[in-house]
Amino acid sequence: METLKQRIREEGKVLPGNIVKVDGFLNHRVDTKLMKEIAKEFKRRFDLSDITVVLTAEASGIALATVCAEEFGVPMVFAKKAKSDNIEGGLYQSDIFSYTYKKKVTLLVSKDWLKSTDKVLIVDDFMANGEAMRGLCDIVKAAGAELVGIGIAVEKGFQHGGDRLREAGINIQSLAIIESADENGFVFRED
Amino acid sequence: METLKQRIREEGKVLPGNIVKVDGFLNHRVDTKLMKEIAKEFKRRFDLSDITVVLTAEASGIALATVCAEEFGVPMVFAKKAKSDNIEGGLYQSDIFSYTYKKKVTLLVSKDWLKSTDKVLIVDDFMANGEAMRGLCDIVKAAGAELVGIGIAVEKGFQHGGDRLREAGINIQSLAIIESADENGFVFRED
Repeated sequence: METLKQRIREEGKVLPGNIVKVDGFLNHRVDTKLMKEIAKEFKRRFDLSDITVVLTAEASGIALATVCAEEFGVPMVFAKKAKSDNIEGGLYQSDIFSYTYKKKVTLLVSKDWLKSTDKVLIVDDFMANGEAMRGLCDIVKAAGAELVGIGIAVEKGFQHGGDRLREAGINIQSLAIIESADENGFVFRED
Repeated sequence: METLKQRIREEGKVLPGNIVKVDGFLNHRVDTKLMKEIAKEFKRRFDLSDITVVLTAEASGIALATVCAEEFGVPMVFAKKAKSDNIEGGLYQSDIFSYTYKKKVTLLVSKDWLKSTDKVLIVDDFMANGEAMRGLCDIVKAAGAELVGIGIAVEKGFQHGGDRLREAGINIQSLAIIESADENGFVFRED
């Protein structure tokens, strides 16, 4: 998606440790107009005619997933991380390793809000090693729901999380796949 | 806002410790159509003609704040939550006590994304003791930005966080203020 790649080229930064920072429009300040364009691009790339829910993980995925759910006319469910008092029993859960926080976190979705009759599009703003996506796929499977695909805004291709999920036969559409990011700028994988 | 109160009456639950659970449409599964209606109600209640940003705190406020920002045609910024140690530079921060997680958390907003020229509407899905709102107000003040007001979907009136902020002269609009919640159902404060 050329608009998104252009924004990454113009506003993205590379921090030590290959950390790609796009927090001016994607995951700290969020450009809601761009989110809408991304939602429409997912609509072109997936058959969303009978999906029932958009699923994401807190926190930064929520903004894009909300705009997508609104565009597709379905509710948005976000997996919570770890346990708060507001979630009772009756949970699907999956343990993932968070490279951001360098520790294990547990993704939780209430069994009330994901059913075997659901058709699910998973959406996230960013994918690196793909741990959160693996966790969400586990939860969809545990619910007996149908996974239509995974829509990602920005994928760090050189960390291969997306490739592992593609090899597992999952339909992943990433709108900008970064193959390398350094002082010379960003190189994107061809569509 | 009658639509919202009706949803709380029909789908809300009360857990021990006066915890009000509205996670079927507000903060775990999110009804994006209802969020749009809430955004439009905020538009009627505030003068939003020259706001520049909608500000919220992660995680569950992000969904409503995103729909509001989209409706108002401005970006959405969400404060991140972190432990108090190891804070980088270039951030506005405010310590709050999280009753949900029963510990101190620090709200963080990059100085890049909140400026003295900004006119800010703070939005959150839920307010109880008002700690998160107090923290966001601190951050707006630290940035030298102008606070237009605070828009809340559901306020727990009997915990008086909203009343303390009203007494401080802040324009808070809560679309459903719950005065009591028990086995007999919900009682709302009159508009």
